[in-house]
Amino acid sequence: MTSVAAYEHLEAHWRRLSHIGDAISALHWDQSVMMPPGGAAARADQIATLSVLRHDVMVDPKIEDLLSEAEAGLVGDSWQIANLAEMRRLWAHATAVPGSLVEAMSKAGSHCETMWRDARPNSDFALVLPALRDVLTLTRDIAQAKAEVLNCSEYDALLDTYEPGGQSDRIDGVFSDYAEFLPDFLDDVLCRQDLASAPISPSGPFPVEQQRALCRLMSESVGFDFNAGRLDESLHPFSTGVPEDSRITTRYDDDDYTFALMGVLHETGHAMYERGRPSAWRNQPVGDARGMTMHESQSLIVEMQACRSRAFYDWAAPVQRNAFGGFGAAWDVDNLHRRAIQVERGFIRVDADEVTYPAHIILRYRLERAMLSGDLLLSDLPGAWNDELKSLLNITPPDDRRGCLQDIHWYDGAWGYFPTYTLGAMTAAQFFETATAQDPDILAGLGRGDFAPLMNWLRENVHSQASSKSTDAIIEQATGRPLDDAAFKRHLRARYLP
Amino acid sequence: MTSVAAYEHLEAHWRRLSHIGDAISALHWDQSVMMPPGGAAARADQIATLSVLRHDVMVDPKIEDLLSEAEAGLVGDSWQIANLAEMRRLWAHATAVPGSLVEAMSKAGSHCETMWRDARPNSDFALVLPALRDVLTLTRDIAQAKAEVLNCSEYDALLDTYEPGGQSDRIDGVFSDYAEFLPDFLDDVLCRQDLASAPISPSGPFPVEQQRALCRLMSESVGFDFNAGRLDESLHPFSTGVPEDSRITTRYDDDDYTFALMGVLHETGHAMYERGRPSAWRNQPVGDARGMTMHESQSLIVEMQACRSRAFYDWAAPVQRNAFGGFGAAWDVDNLHRRAIQVERGFIRVDADEVTYPAHIILRYRLERAMLSGDLLLSDLPGAWNDELKSLLNITPPDDRRGCLQDIHWYDGAWGYFPTYTLGAMTAAQFFETATAQDPDILAGLGRGDFAPLMNWLRENVHSQASSKSTDAIIEQATGRPLDDAAFKRHLRARYLP
Repeated sequence: MTSVAAYEHLEAHWRRLSHIGDAISALHWDQSVMMPPGGAAARADQIATLSVLRHDVMVDPKIEDLLSEAEAGLVGDSWQIANLAEMRRLWAHATAVPGSLVEAMSKAGSHCETMWRDARPNSDFALVLPALRDVLTLTRDIAQAKAEVLNCSEYDALLDTYEPGGQSDRIDGVFSDYAEFLPDFLDDVLCRQDLASAPISPSGPFPVEQQRALCRLMSESVGFDFNAGRLDESLHPFSTGVPEDSRITTRYDDDDYTFALMGVLHETGHAMYERGRPSAWRNQPVGDARGMTMHESQSLIVEMQACRSRAFYDWAAPVQRNAFGGFGAAWDVDNLHRRAIQVERGFIRVDADEVTYPAHIILRYRLERAMLSGDLLLSDLPGAWNDELKSLLNITPPDDRRGCLQDIHWYDGAWGYFPTYTLGAMTAAQFFETATAQDPDILAGLGRGDFAPLMNWLRENVHSQASSKSTDAIIEQATGRPLDDAAFKRHLRARYLP
Repeated sequence: MTSVAAYEHLEAHWRRLSHIGDAISALHWDQSVMMPPGGAAARADQIATLSVLRHDVMVDPKIEDLLSEAEAGLVGDSWQIANLAEMRRLWAHATAVPGSLVEAMSKAGSHCETMWRDARPNSDFALVLPALRDVLTLTRDIAQAKAEVLNCSEYDALLDTYEPGGQSDRIDGVFSDYAEFLPDFLDDVLCRQDLASAPISPSGPFPVEQQRALCRLMSESVGFDFNAGRLDESLHPFSTGVPEDSRITTRYDDDDYTFALMGVLHETGHAMYERGRPSAWRNQPVGDARGMTMHESQSLIVEMQACRSRAFYDWAAPVQRNAFGGFGAAWDVDNLHRRAIQVERGFIRVDADEVTYPAHIILRYRLERAMLSGDLLLSDLPGAWNDELKSLLNITPPDDRRGCLQDIHWYDGAWGYFPTYTLGAMTAAQFFETATAQDPDILAGLGRGDFAPLMNWLRENVHSQASSKSTDAIIEQATGRPLDDAAFKRHLRARYLP
């Protein structure tokens, strides 16, 4: 077989893998959004069986031969070469883990997620502990197996799934730098904030139907196409689906419409990245998202950089007021904007402002490393969580619902994922700083509800690159330098200590 | 390997097949109920890939050896023996058709169904014709391949998928008998009906929210558990899912709540059959529904036998009146009951009364046989449809939306399915006649909204049998004789010419 023929076989092979993965995602979406409680066991079986099938297809022995044959002589365009390299990387990940372990992990994750859905509202960590113990044991087994093959630390082996090439050494540096920067900066911000009068909260009611309509309108302004997507409700907002069938979710809070709205804008940013990558490379590894850091940068550039900018509120404030027929000072542009950038020491990661958010991530990053290494016993997690939050933000959660039960990630089996949130926030700041410097119409556009200039920049500099280059190379090509936290700190100083 | 060990391997194998099938069903449900238009192409890819995978798992060469080994010496209980026989039957079906044909059929069906969704509202048969031609060509290829293996006619080979052991010779006899009985009987019924004053239609409005609440209440009365199921909307009502996650759908008509309600009661009957079969045999062939005739008998015994009985209206009439805050003569028990059993020469199968319904089926049965044999060209289908309806019911559809575009079946690739509707109606009549004779509390229970006596009889005599026996054997064991149309005719005479 020629290298070209081998490569073409591999493309067909990965198309099938992509379809199976998309089917699994659709089943997960249904589980979180539509499924009645009785369906949990059968759904876990379905997803486990498909996960094993996907794994079996991935580790098909003939793939190794095809990879070697293609690598021996492929001289295609750079995207084909990059595609082949991504295939090799994914194949290494998959073959490191036996099928029985994949199946066990899928079932344990589904079961633990179901338990967590009961445990969280009741702050009942003990209820979910046995299931979480199973998840952790299997996660360790997977980390160990991958670390041997990838020749890295066990934690980095998990991280690599979400952030290809990610290194905890580098993260340690960035995170300890931020942990040092935060206390004084946060004090200054809160001090300055306290000097001004508190922004007025618009008073409701905020009926869910009107909240939903506002969310749809603003999501469409960013570029979301409801002929190619849906907006639904789930306990934990998320986005999934395929580019022409993008599923985003949120939660509605009767007392504060901004929670759902900002969640939808966040998920819309994710969806735009899915939709914006080259359709010619769809269902191929090189056409995939570059990693979760890049993905989060796209949600945060919409939610945090664009949709909390002062410019945006010239358009957004009257639109929000009209959505609820509101009147009075609470709906003034400056008041709504000030309200959108309030900083607070809080318990909940997804409600956190961008200044304190990294503290929540640093906490999780430290704790998940300690649990994986065995330095922290699972039964001690609630206490360790509270100690860590005390040391980082000087507050203590009143219960585990607002502590270690708040996020789905660990319970669902996503270990090594958390750091990408804060790396994404820093990437978003670096992109936005460069983009707005290169095109002044980006900020002007936000002021008239026109996201096209921003999205054009992102399409050209980020979305169009897909996985053809490394995260660092995409950032460097777009902004002139690799990722650092300088732009993020400049952004925070400009917004909070002007 | 011992026969027992081989058999146990086969059980594990079929569990996986069942999980894949359940996943495919969930994707179909989403496609019909939730998916935005943009998702069609990707969903077709997902379902096609999973269908091929299922086929690959099914035709795994080691299965033939396992079947032979198990058959050589298995002396288990009768359910194990029956399970093994069902496995052999399913394996024969699957191995008759090459994987490439399975994939092509899945894609063609998905594509044609999507085209049909556009074609139907616009009565645009030409729009869907090319896609339907592809479906028919592939269906013929499948029929031919299966007929050779099953040693039967091509039509019977398709029928066997839906009604194991079904024979068109026998159907020809039953259908021509009914086609002879119908004209005089229908004249008599309509003549008698015309002598009485027409029942009064309750006047709306019938807001969808209130219709939905009524549908849920009545479905729950039959036994549907909303912790283990959902009720949603789709163009064509259907039921799917797994026993503890049962998904039923309906359509709401603003002007007439009974359309949605009777649809929900029908689908609830299907769901009760799914839920009622032995959980010990779940995900095994012997635990599956016996076939579509039996399945339809369970929906029709609820919708037609129980929920159009005079006894039922003692309870149902006031419940319906209260659901909409109605008042006046239209809501009287006798009026609502008479309205529920009106007979009419109509165009639409799913709206048809039980007297004329078989005519719609006889039409489709005759036409699908003619299209498959090549006696009828697809381009001539609209005309042939209209001619046939003229000859059976003496009416002509004004357009194809109310003619050959009304049903999803052919467009979705379900050829050989239609006769099971009328065989199911006859089976339901035979079951209900025996059940109500054996337990007088069944009719009394309906009068107080208590379906437990009827459901107990069905669980014991039908649901509990699953696929452990043939359709005929189950009917004979429950009613003392094989299926005939005598009970159905007695039922029609008693209800319509008392």
